[in-house]
This record gives sequence, C-alpha cells and structure tokens, in this order.
Amino acid sequence: MSVTVVGSIAFDAVMTPFGARERMLGGSAVHFALAASFFDTVHVVGPVGDDFGEQEYAVLRARGVNVDDIEHVRGGRTFFWRGEYGWDLNERRTLDTQLNVFGEFRPKLSEHSRSADVVFLANIQPDLQREVRAQCSAARFVALDSMNLWIETARDSLIETIGCVDCLILNDAELRELTREPNLVRAARRARDWGPRVIVAKQGAYGAAMFTDEGFFGLPAFPLETVIDPTGAGDCFAGGFIGYVAAHPDGELDHELLCRAMAYGTVLASYNVEDFGVERVARLTSDEVSERVTDLQRITRFIEKPVALRN
Amino acid sequence: MSVTVVGSIAFDAVMTPFGARERMLGGSAVHFALAASFFDTVHVVGPVGDDFGEQEYAVLRARGVNVDDIEHVRGGRTFFWRGEYGWDLNERRTLDTQLNVFGEFRPKLSEHSRSADVVFLANIQPDLQREVRAQCSAARFVALDSMNLWIETARDSLIETIGCVDCLILNDAELRELTREPNLVRAARRARDWGPRVIVAKQGAYGAAMFTDEGFFGLPAFPLETVIDPTGAGDCFAGGFIGYVAAHPDGELDHELLCRAMAYGTVLASYNVEDFGVERVARLTSDEVSERVTDLQRITRFIEKPVALRN
Repeated sequence: MSVTVVGSIAFDAVMTPFGARERMLGGSAVHFALAASFFDTVHVVGPVGDDFGEQEYAVLRARGVNVDDIEHVRGGRTFFWRGEYGWDLNERRTLDTQLNVFGEFRPKLSEHSRSADVVFLANIQPDLQREVRAQCSAARFVALDSMNLWIETARDSLIETIGCVDCLILNDAELRELTREPNLVRAARRARDWGPRVIVAKQGAYGAAMFTDEGFFGLPAFPLETVIDPTGAGDCFAGGFIGYVAAHPDGELDHELLCRAMAYGTVLASYNVEDFGVERVARLTSDEVSERVTDLQRITRFIEKPVALRN
Repeated sequence: MSVTVVGSIAFDAVMTPFGARERMLGGSAVHFALAASFFDTVHVVGPVGDDFGEQEYAVLRARGVNVDDIEHVRGGRTFFWRGEYGWDLNERRTLDTQLNVFGEFRPKLSEHSRSADVVFLANIQPDLQREVRAQCSAARFVALDSMNLWIETARDSLIETIGCVDCLILNDAELRELTREPNLVRAARRARDWGPRVIVAKQGAYGAAMFTDEGFFGLPAFPLETVIDPTGAGDCFAGGFIGYVAAHPDGELDHELLCRAMAYGTVLASYNVEDFGVERVARLTSDEVSERVTDLQRITRFIEKPVALRN
C-alpha cells in the first residue's frame, strides 16, 4: 500500500522574529510527504527545475519517500516563495511568488503513483486536482486541500472537484468563505453535502476540527513555547492525518480512527513549526511522534464525574 | 459555602445578524452569577440605578442568586452598553457606553459577601478589585478577569492585583498583551510568576486553555449550529468554571478537577450564546448542563492505539 501526493515542490525564503532562511526546501508536497513518511511509502508528484539538486532529493530519500515522479523540467527553475511572519505567527505576508515550472505543471503519474490506495491532492488548480483524481481510480481514500485563490477564481471547478473526494481539508476561514456560511458547523455540513464524508477545518494555532457522519471532533494544537516557522504546518498536519489513514485497512476506517488520525496530524504539525522549513521533521524520530501523541491525549482529556447541580 | 462576584450589572442593546434587543439584562456579574448558580449560592455585588426593577431582580432570584448586595443608587441610571456583531461573531463593535452609576462604583460588601469561600473579581478597575480581595480574607479561591482598557491604562496596578489572586481568566490576546509575550505558553508562565497558580486563556469560538503547575489543558468550544449573541459568554465561562470549583472542597482542588471545571465553563458559555443576553441560561436546566458535559467529553476525546511507525 502507498500514498501519492500531488502538489508543489519549492524553495522558500522565510523571515520570522526568530531568524531567517534565504533558500530552504519547501512546498506542500514536500511537507506532506515527510510527515506521511512515518506511516507508509509516499510517492511525490510535482515539478522542479535545474536548481533542484541531489541535496534536496536526499532529504526526501532519507525518509524513504519515492521521488521517481518528481518531474525535472530542463531549463526551468523551481517554484519560489518569499514570506515574512511578525510576532503574531498566525499572520504572514507574502513578499514574492515565482511560479516558474509550477506555472505550467500538468501532473504525470506513473503506474506506481496511480495505483496508490490513498491520495492527497495538495493545493493546486482544481481542474488539475480532478484530472489526478480520475487517474487514481483504485484509491480508497482521497483528500484535497485548496486555498482562497481557487475559492475566488475557480469556485465552481473546486466544488466539482470536492464532489470527487472523500475528505476535504481546509483552513476554517477558507471553509467558511467557500461555503458562504459564517458558522463553521453549517459550513462543514454544506461541504459534506457536496460529497466528501470527512471535513477537516484547520484552525492554525488553535487546533483543528473534524466533521463526519458520526459527528464532531475537536482538538487543540499542541502547546509550544518555541515556534520558529509555521510554514508547511498545514501540509504536515495533512501528512500525519492521511498517513495514519493509509496505515490502516479500509475496514477500520471509522470516526474513532479518524480522531486518532487528527492527533497524529496535530503532532506532526507541532514538530514542523519548531524549526525552519522541513528541518525539524527531517530529523524527527518515530519515538518522538509517539511520545507527543501520548502527551496530547493527556492534555486534552477530562474525566467526567457527577456533581450535584441546582435547578 | 458561597460564591461572591463583584462586577457590572447592565442593560445591553445588541444587534446581530439574527436579530436585536433594545434593552436586556446583562453585565459581567449577572452573566457570571446565573452560570455559577448551578453550583452554589452566589452573592452579587454591583450598582444599579432607578431603572433597574423587579423584573430584573426576579431573573436573578429565580436562580437562587442572592441580591442583597446589589446597591441601588437613588437618582442614578444603570450601566448601559450598545454593541453590534457582524457575520463573524468573533468581532464586535461598541456603539455606545454609558457608565452611569458604574462610573462611581465603590464595592460595599456585606458580612455575607465578604465571607464567601470563592470570589470572582469580574472586570472592574484593578485598584477596586484589590480592595475587594483584601476584604475577602477568608476566601480559599479568588479569580480575576480584566480587559485591554486596564492593561493599557493601569498595567502596574493590574499586575499587583493579579499577585493577590489564585486564578487569572483572560482572553488569550489580552493575556499576550498584558505579559508582552506573543507566545501563549510563555505568556501564561510569566503571569503565573506574578502569583496565580491557575491561568485560563479564553479563546472565543476556539475554546479555552488552562495552565497550572501540573501542566496544560486545552478544550475546544462546544460546536454550535446556531449562535445568536456572544455577549456574556466569557463571564458564563467563568461562572461555570468557578462555580464548579466552589462546589468542591479545597482538598479536591487539583489539576484534574480544574480540567472538569473547564468543561463546565465551556458548556455554560455554549448555552449562553444560543440566545440573546441571559435568556438561554435563565431557562437552562441542570439536566441540560450535564448532558452537554457528557457530549463535550465524547467529542474531544481520542483513544490512542499503537501504530507501527517508520523511522
């Protein structure tokens, strides 16, 4: 069994109050793949240019990620993003975006990538996401991320694509914008009416919420004293969440299992923000993942006891 | 045993996308008292004017709240606030504030109010909060709320007052502003260094976080399809949280108990926002409270199971 992710591969330049990096490995497919690599073999599908070298491949290979479907566009340059975070790390400012080879990207999936049983359509143009979805006809669980750009410029196509997947993972503000429902519970219900049986609303530093036919599940973010760089946290969340799903057979895929998947997503995202770019997750161990899941369970659980209430 | 709350008693005019009220019972002490009344006898200390009548007293008395220390200022008018919420109910706009009798308020506590074993200093001027704290010398648990106005105009006094209480309950943005620490975990640690052993950061529609010497506890807000009016939610949270503490002897007051108190705070706040002002909590039953605490436990709990992770 394996996971396929289709999305961006990038170089990021990031400035935060805690330091800066001029050129570091990034992109949604990369962050997702490193996080999901704790659970299953991951195939990355995305384009790079001549500036993408052995050093970058090595980071992915070191975690067992399959890079055969990384498409090297000769004469091109890799997608580049430059951004800045202030003291409130929830707010970021994009200073420069150079699409480069990502601008002309048409996903080409090998037989191996197409036959994955779990697929993550990271944030790319929704028509392309739908093409990929159609190619992965054997997949038992397909999840999709998107962004305000597509909500605002390609909403109909995005809704059509959402109708072809099992799980929608979006920031909560985007979910409300997409569905035109200011209330999150109603927004999730509307999105579920379009097709997916699972809706995950990412809430940044506040955590994440999940809606399935069995109901709601909410989980705070893991509390951290030191947050260095939030770039890629959402994709690491998706990697932990979907990786956990991929590690279990279809018969076990119920609400309870998805709640646990939320915990793994939360933990992978929390490690990601502890250092720049992929640096923390690239050196993460499976013991660290397990320990933090145990901690997360402890710090989010209360045990009800009867109390005499006055009417 | 009993609880004393010192704070505002008000008439609120509120406009939301779901309707409006021109004049409804409100104020921090009122919202707190109604929520805490499910757990213990509550003494309300606060000023009202000639416009505060039997109808308003009746709402409090119907829930067993002791109104003996509500100070009727002859010839005065009750505190009045007018505000408006947009589609995003997390954002509110104040249109009018008339302090009236609240502007000259000097809390006068009867022997009964002074001898309460649990005290909530709702959001009033920090010097006054300290005066009240000094009068309640027998109290075993004193909690305090504040707001950006006092952080910006009376920070030193507020920090001194915080040094005299057991528990600080603030909005997370205010806690970060007060401590000048953008990171919530560090902000809570700094506030604990000033004295209180319990810090609660309210996060609006996202839930609440608690910090004690035994660690962190995080709880999402109860998911609601229908939110009519968020006014008073924070004070109802405090009422549920502190009321739960009051209902238990000091010997049981550990981290576990405070986690359960967070659940009751969350549930009381969730009911409060389902209707205008105090309307929902005034007709709430203890069975409804218990049921929602059970629901909250179910929708925030995940059960860890071992999974084979790849290193």
